[in-house]
Amino acid sequence: MPPTQKTIASLAADLAAGRATSVALTEAALDRIADPAGEGARVFISPDPAAARATALAQAEASDRLRAAGIVPSPLAGIPISVKDLLDVAGQVTAAGSVVLRGAPPAGADAPVVARLRAAGAVIVGRTNMTEFAFSGLGFNPHHGTPGNPFDRARIPGGSSSGAAVSVADGMAAGAIGSDTGGSVRIPAALCGLAGFKPTQSRVPRTGALPLSWTLDTIGPLARSVECCALLDAVLAGEPPAAPAAMAVSGLRLAVPREIVLDGLDETVAAAFARALDRLSRAGARIAEFSMPALTRIAEANGKGGFATAEALAWHKDLLEDRGDEYDPRVAVRIRRGAEQSAVDYIDLLAARTSIMTEAAAQTRDFDALVLPTVPLVAPRFDELEKDADYARLNVMMLRNPSLFNFLDRPAVTLPCATDGLPVGVMLVGKRHHDHRLLAMALGVEPVINRRRASRQ
Amino acid sequence: MPPTQKTIASLAADLAAGRATSVALTEAALDRIADPAGEGARVFISPDPAAARATALAQAEASDRLRAAGIVPSPLAGIPISVKDLLDVAGQVTAAGSVVLRGAPPAGADAPVVARLRAAGAVIVGRTNMTEFAFSGLGFNPHHGTPGNPFDRARIPGGSSSGAAVSVADGMAAGAIGSDTGGSVRIPAALCGLAGFKPTQSRVPRTGALPLSWTLDTIGPLARSVECCALLDAVLAGEPPAAPAAMAVSGLRLAVPREIVLDGLDETVAAAFARALDRLSRAGARIAEFSMPALTRIAEANGKGGFATAEALAWHKDLLEDRGDEYDPRVAVRIRRGAEQSAVDYIDLLAARTSIMTEAAAQTRDFDALVLPTVPLVAPRFDELEKDADYARLNVMMLRNPSLFNFLDRPAVTLPCATDGLPVGVMLVGKRHHDHRLLAMALGVEPVINRRRASRQ
Repeated sequence: MPPTQKTIASLAADLAAGRATSVALTEAALDRIADPAGEGARVFISPDPAAARATALAQAEASDRLRAAGIVPSPLAGIPISVKDLLDVAGQVTAAGSVVLRGAPPAGADAPVVARLRAAGAVIVGRTNMTEFAFSGLGFNPHHGTPGNPFDRARIPGGSSSGAAVSVADGMAAGAIGSDTGGSVRIPAALCGLAGFKPTQSRVPRTGALPLSWTLDTIGPLARSVECCALLDAVLAGEPPAAPAAMAVSGLRLAVPREIVLDGLDETVAAAFARALDRLSRAGARIAEFSMPALTRIAEANGKGGFATAEALAWHKDLLEDRGDEYDPRVAVRIRRGAEQSAVDYIDLLAARTSIMTEAAAQTRDFDALVLPTVPLVAPRFDELEKDADYARLNVMMLRNPSLFNFLDRPAVTLPCATDGLPVGVMLVGKRHHDHRLLAMALGVEPVINRRRASRQ
Repeated sequence: MPPTQKTIASLAADLAAGRATSVALTEAALDRIADPAGEGARVFISPDPAAARATALAQAEASDRLRAAGIVPSPLAGIPISVKDLLDVAGQVTAAGSVVLRGAPPAGADAPVVARLRAAGAVIVGRTNMTEFAFSGLGFNPHHGTPGNPFDRARIPGGSSSGAAVSVADGMAAGAIGSDTGGSVRIPAALCGLAGFKPTQSRVPRTGALPLSWTLDTIGPLARSVECCALLDAVLAGEPPAAPAAMAVSGLRLAVPREIVLDGLDETVAAAFARALDRLSRAGARIAEFSMPALTRIAEANGKGGFATAEALAWHKDLLEDRGDEYDPRVAVRIRRGAEQSAVDYIDLLAARTSIMTEAAAQTRDFDALVLPTVPLVAPRFDELEKDADYARLNVMMLRNPSLFNFLDRPAVTLPCATDGLPVGVMLVGKRHHDHRLLAMALGVEPVINRRRASRQ
C-alpha cells in the first residue's frame, strides 16, 4: 500500500502555519524518487536526475524565501508537482517517453500550463514516464521500464500518464499534470486509486504539449482528491487558484447509460459500482438508467480509423520513416495504420462527430451528470500483456469508456470509490464547457462513494 | 448595356414616399425575367416559373399591405431579391444547379439566411442558376444553359453565382444572395460590373446551404453598390439592417501584395487597376507594395488537393456512384479527384492553414486593407471555353486571387472600377472578423475608383 499522503490544501495549510517548508516537502518527494527500493527510476525519466533534483530544490528554496517575505501566489506555492514528459519545460528535451526524441533540441520556453504552474508557485519536481507518445491506455513503456501499480507492483499502473499517477500515489508529488486523448489521465488515476480530471478541450491550452490527436487531446491533473484536481485545473486554465464549493448530492439527477459502458465489468468493478450507486441513491441523488444511442454511433463513426491514428501519423511520418525501428513496435504499428485512412473518411468522421455531439447533448439534457465505471477492469497484471493480442484487447477495454467523452468533448472526472480489492474508479461526465459545475458535483459525490465500508456498514 | 437600376436605398426611398409599390417593382423584375429576348430563362431556374411568379407577387402584395399599415421591418421591405439555387427555401427542391437532385425532397424549412431576408421584408423573386454544385469560377452550366454577360452576351458571366450576378445586372432583382468558396460571389460580381462581398466565414450561418467545402464556404451578397451589399450582409448576419458609415479614404493604409495577385493581368485589368491606385493615392490613401510570402505558402499547401475536392466528395460520394453520369463531366471529374487525398494530407493542410493564417495576419498587421485586382482577366468569351484544357486554365485564373482569402478566412469585397472596356473589379481585403470595418472602407473607396473617367479628366 502507498504511504498516507496529504491533499494540496492540507499541505498548503502546513506551509502557511510554519509546520512545513517547501524545501522539506520537496526533499521528501525527492527522497522517495531516489529510493532504489521504490519506483522512482521508472516514474521520473529526467535524463539527468542530479540536475533535476538540484533544480527542484532551487525552486523550493526560492518559494520559502518568497513566503518569508509574505509572497504566496496560490495554494500551490511550494508544493511539489510532476509534469508528464510530453510538456515543454524551458531548457529540457520533450521526448514524450520515447528514445527517438532524446537528441531533439531542448524546449525554448515552458508550455503555458507549466508557466502557469510556476506562476502559481508550484515546485516542478520532474518529468514523468508515459506510454511512448501517449499511444495506449495501459502505461507500458519498453524504453524506460514501467512503474508498478502502487497497490500491487505486479500490475500495470494504467496509462498513458503512468508516471503521473504513480508519482502521486507513491508520495513523489502532491499532484501531477497529465494529458488525456482517450483516457490517459482517467485510466491511471482509476487504476491507482486517485482522482483525475479531463476538461473540455478548449479550457486548457495545449501549446507546448507534444500532440497525439489535435481533435481529442486535453491536459488535466491527477491527484489525491477532487479538490486537489479542481485547484490544479483552475491554475492550468488560468483562473483564480481555487476549487469551487461542493454541490449537494441530494437531488442530483445522475444517469447511467445502458449502452457499452456496463459491458464486461469484472467482479470487483461491478460490486464497487453497484455500491457507489446505492450510496448515492441513499444520499438523495436520483439515479436513472437510460438509453443513450449516441454512444453506439461513436463506435460506428470510429470504424474507419478514428481521429488519433491519422492525426498522429501527420506529426510522426518523417520521424517514423527515418527512425521507426527506435519506436515501441506496439506504438509504431498503431500510428502507421493512419495511412489507411482517406481524407473523405476523415471528413466523414468530423461531420459525424458534430452530429453525434448534438444528439448526445439532447439525450443527456435532463441529467446533471452521467455516472459510469471509469474502466471495466481492475489493473491487469504485467504477465497478462505479454502477447500482442492480449495487449491490444486490454488496451481497447481500458480506453473504451473514457474515450467516448473525448469524442464528445465533455468534461469528465474519475473518483476513487470504496472497493473490496484493487482500486476502482467511478466517472462523472458533465455537459460541455460546464467544467466548474462538474467539479462542484464531484466534490459532493466524492465523500459519499469513497467512504470506507467499515465506517458506514 | 444593362438597364439603369437603382440601389436598394433609393428603391426603399421610392417605396417610403409612395413613388413605387412592391408589386410594381416585383412585376418589373418578373417581366424582365419572363422577357424571351432576355436572359431570364438561364438566370432563374425555378422548375415552375408560373408558380414562382405567383409566389413573388403574393409576397409583394403582402409587403404593400404591411406598409400601408405602417409596418416596414427594414429597408429591404418590398424589394425583389434573388437567391442562389443552393439555398433552402421551404417547399422547394434545393438542386444547386444540378439535374441529379431535381427529384430530391423539397426543403422543410427556409435556410436561416432566407428566413432573415423574409423577416426583413424582402421579396424572394426566385432561385438563380449557378455552376453545378458551385464547382467552378466560370459560371458555365450545361444543364440549364449559361446566362450571357450583361456587357457582352458572347462572354461568360463568371461563377459559380452566375445567375445571381446577371439577375442584378439585368434588373431582375435589386440584390442577390450567392455563396463564395473560392470566389463564387466576387468573380461574377467583378465580371458583371457589380459589388460583391464575402464575409468572414462565421459571420453568416451556412445551415440550409448545400455545401461545397465546409472549411471554405461563405454566404454573401452581390448588388449594385457596396451600400446595397452592406445592407444585405447585415440582414444575412442577423444584425440591425443598416450599412456602416463610410470611412474617409485620406490616410487609409492600403497594400498591394507583390506575390501572385498581379501576375498575368490582361491590358484592361492592368490599366484599370493602375488608374484605381492612382485615384486612391490622389485621394490621400497611402499605398504600399509589399511582400506577403504567406500567399506563396497557400499555393504550396494546396498542392495535395486542397480542401474543396475531398470535402465535396464526402458529400457527393454516394450520389456520384449512383448517378455520376448525370453530372456535368467537368464538375464530376474534379470532385472525384478528392479520392486521391489521404487523411494525413488533409490533416497537414489543416495544420498548414492555421500557421499560414497567423503568418498572414502578422505580415498585414500594419495595413488597413489589401487592394488587388479581383480577377486578372476580363470576362472570357464562351468560345474560349470549348476545350477542357482552356476551361481548366481559365478557371484557375479566375479563382486564383479570390480563393486566397477563403483560405485565410478574411472578409473581401469586390468593387467595380472605372474601365476603358469590359468591367473590372478591385478587391479590398480586411482583417478576419473585421467585416464592418472593411465595408466602411469600401464605402469610402467605391466613389473614388468607380467615378466615370469623363467626369474627372
